[in-house]
Amino acid sequence: MVGDGLRQLDRVFHPRGVAVIGASSNPEKFGHYFFKCLVESGFSPVYPVNPAAAPVLGFPGFRSVGDIPEPVDLAVVVTPPPSVPGAVRECGRKGVQGVIIYTSGYREVGEDGRLREEELTRLARETGVRILGPNCVGIYCPKSKLINASYLSRESGPVGMVSHSGSMTTLLAMVAEPRGIRFSKVISSGNECDLDAVDFLEYLGQDEDTRFIVLYLEGVRRGPEFVRLAAEIGRRKPILFWKGGATEGGARAAASHTGSLSGSGEIWQSVIRQTGMTRVHSLEELVDCLQAFYYLEPPAGRNVVIVSAPGGPAVTTCDACLENGLALARLTTETREAIARVIPPTGSSSNNPIDIGQVAQFAPHMYTESLRLADRDPGVDMALTIGWPQPQVTEAIVRAKEVMTKPLALAVIGHLSPTDPITHKLHGAGIPVFPDPRRAARALGALAEWGERVRRRTPLLWDVRQVGPVGPV
Amino acid sequence: MVGDGLRQLDRVFHPRGVAVIGASSNPEKFGHYFFKCLVESGFSPVYPVNPAAAPVLGFPGFRSVGDIPEPVDLAVVVTPPPSVPGAVRECGRKGVQGVIIYTSGYREVGEDGRLREEELTRLARETGVRILGPNCVGIYCPKSKLINASYLSRESGPVGMVSHSGSMTTLLAMVAEPRGIRFSKVISSGNECDLDAVDFLEYLGQDEDTRFIVLYLEGVRRGPEFVRLAAEIGRRKPILFWKGGATEGGARAAASHTGSLSGSGEIWQSVIRQTGMTRVHSLEELVDCLQAFYYLEPPAGRNVVIVSAPGGPAVTTCDACLENGLALARLTTETREAIARVIPPTGSSSNNPIDIGQVAQFAPHMYTESLRLADRDPGVDMALTIGWPQPQVTEAIVRAKEVMTKPLALAVIGHLSPTDPITHKLHGAGIPVFPDPRRAARALGALAEWGERVRRRTPLLWDVRQVGPVGPV
Repeated sequence: MVGDGLRQLDRVFHPRGVAVIGASSNPEKFGHYFFKCLVESGFSPVYPVNPAAAPVLGFPGFRSVGDIPEPVDLAVVVTPPPSVPGAVRECGRKGVQGVIIYTSGYREVGEDGRLREEELTRLARETGVRILGPNCVGIYCPKSKLINASYLSRESGPVGMVSHSGSMTTLLAMVAEPRGIRFSKVISSGNECDLDAVDFLEYLGQDEDTRFIVLYLEGVRRGPEFVRLAAEIGRRKPILFWKGGATEGGARAAASHTGSLSGSGEIWQSVIRQTGMTRVHSLEELVDCLQAFYYLEPPAGRNVVIVSAPGGPAVTTCDACLENGLALARLTTETREAIARVIPPTGSSSNNPIDIGQVAQFAPHMYTESLRLADRDPGVDMALTIGWPQPQVTEAIVRAKEVMTKPLALAVIGHLSPTDPITHKLHGAGIPVFPDPRRAARALGALAEWGERVRRRTPLLWDVRQVGPVGPV
Repeated sequence: MVGDGLRQLDRVFHPRGVAVIGASSNPEKFGHYFFKCLVESGFSPVYPVNPAAAPVLGFPGFRSVGDIPEPVDLAVVVTPPPSVPGAVRECGRKGVQGVIIYTSGYREVGEDGRLREEELTRLARETGVRILGPNCVGIYCPKSKLINASYLSRESGPVGMVSHSGSMTTLLAMVAEPRGIRFSKVISSGNECDLDAVDFLEYLGQDEDTRFIVLYLEGVRRGPEFVRLAAEIGRRKPILFWKGGATEGGARAAASHTGSLSGSGEIWQSVIRQTGMTRVHSLEELVDCLQAFYYLEPPAGRNVVIVSAPGGPAVTTCDACLENGLALARLTTETREAIARVIPPTGSSSNNPIDIGQVAQFAPHMYTESLRLADRDPGVDMALTIGWPQPQVTEAIVRAKEVMTKPLALAVIGHLSPTDPITHKLHGAGIPVFPDPRRAARALGALAEWGERVRRRTPLLWDVRQVGPVGPV
């Protein structure tokens, strides 16, 4: 996209006015729900558009976008397919910059739908209006008060997302926000009849409000551009990538979901290798990795120290760390001796993994001291500690963090709600919290890999012609 | 173990009296904590033993086990290593059946400890007392009121566990019990100077209170016996197996944890193949699989139907199911047409994965009807449904379950506490609940594999001589 295109997208994300075409006063209609979300988020001005020019939630209605006297940069369309082309044409006449088409019934339903979608693509070219969708849930951009689900936060943050699935955008936000994670721009790009994931990736790449990028994609039409951009942006901003339709059955499901052609597993393996994106396979893994990027600076190396009171998890966390690309830090004799002085003489280990022993539940200061001593060891790049949801233990860990200089993650075994005050305190101290050591190890592994990329800063060796188009050209 | 040995273990699990050697009135000592747990669980009679014959929590103290006038079948030792051999000898004289040695400082600390441990092994042979430990946290057997941690349930259930790690036993119970899972006998076998994992596996194999077996092992000394037993018992009872120290670093940690030699990864792969145990790699995966076994009958085949309102998760759940050994059920035309009549015409799919569309949040009965229709399809062996933590949605799923005849699992995206009334209602209806579809797919994959073994009932082809000893002989 050239500068003009990026500026046009800026207007879409920060519109002077939004029209909701198909806004309804019937609370069971999406045309009501989305209008209400906009109103409740405090966005202004908003204009309901419907055939009867009926008011919605007290806002005067308009028969068409053309009747709105003020400037409208963004229109949202929730009406059935037959009325959509006319609405887009009128938006063109009105000078609207972008139209989000929520309506489904296009490429994902087969041949008829494909023809309807091609008409939209032509209309975008003819009118100069950029189309987002169809078959999507639009944009969540709290900074400009564009909010598309009632339960999403009004606060902005550094995470940008592009998703072929609308539900993944709201589900990610729903799961990540209680963990303190906030978003810059979350885009549900749907069938991508005009604007596509490559456009939005480029936009997020240059967007100063976005420091981390999440992609949920079921396929990419402009393979070479995607790989070039992901590799280039991925040197500056971590990209977390989730491929939907990675199996044959999943790919068939994707075709009837967003009409995507998914591309083969081998092609995607190669794309991951060449772009250096962090690949995830579930919403949990995505949020886990995002937490690590969000709360921690990348470590200087791959050497982790494990500090645990329970002994079994100390052993299995070693396994999990090594299986996720980390190495066990070798502690100096000095560090080991110092740690041996603060933990019990038996049922414990002062070597990495540091096994404090069960007695830590009565003497949580052992966590504080062990972590502080380990943090000072030159062989340690990061720490992973394992505890229970017991305030004395988590507070001892927060106290350790106060003077630690290296990344620290905590795995809490046993139920700890993301909305518990203990969790808030840990997040406030810059400690990401994981419900299982294995998940923490995976997230730290991703972070360490990113750290290496940042340190190397060497150009990646790739040739887009070897990748070729991914999905349909 | 012969019949006498099993009977002796029965006395250990159902003792007529328990002596706690090293019971203390100092609340910061383990000798206090464990005595208190026994008292609070209602076990009787209990006898505190300590050098001053001091009473603990109002129970009269004894200088030695020999001074106790009533029969004592089980003694628990929490005193330092030098006093342990004398205590065991005295237990032998008293006719105690089993001694649990909590004390650590044995094989796991090196050569001195190894010699101390060998002395215990000799003492067990000489006195006829069976020793559990050292370096363990004993037994949790709610049926006989042996409870070794204050937060564990007083209710019995069908899950038995043997663990080299004491903390894994209490952590598993802590995580599994809020999910409605209850235990028969949980054994922390520690360094196994006498009774070992093979003995306990054999015991649980014939124990009528135990229907599912969980093993957390860092190594096994009697490899061939273990393989023979696990294969034989594993035809009747599912065995969930977690190997601690699976990596080289983890194995080193295991050596300083319970003194185990872990054996190579290849040997364990072969053990898994020959025994058909379900291998897990984390506490989460363990509890997930346990939930599936606990709440569901094994399905008649590997064909799963996916029913989801959010479309993206429908796609990625296909991936997760296929990657976990399941197949996508092919629905009959009749079923698909019937489902198409209950879900919206667009933004949805009546083919597997059934994508109800976002509208299900306003019309949750679509879940009920889609699930019931899918359940009746002859090509469907089990169902996996995906929803939000919204009572209307989960209630619609409970209503579906009322008439369903095939296993149904639910993945709830978004925070749902295991102690939430919604979760209780789902468990009460026999629906296991997972926080991520991928984890549900893994658990259903394990269940389907077990179902196949049960149906085949063919003897496994293996030869213990090919496996050889696993860990030290």
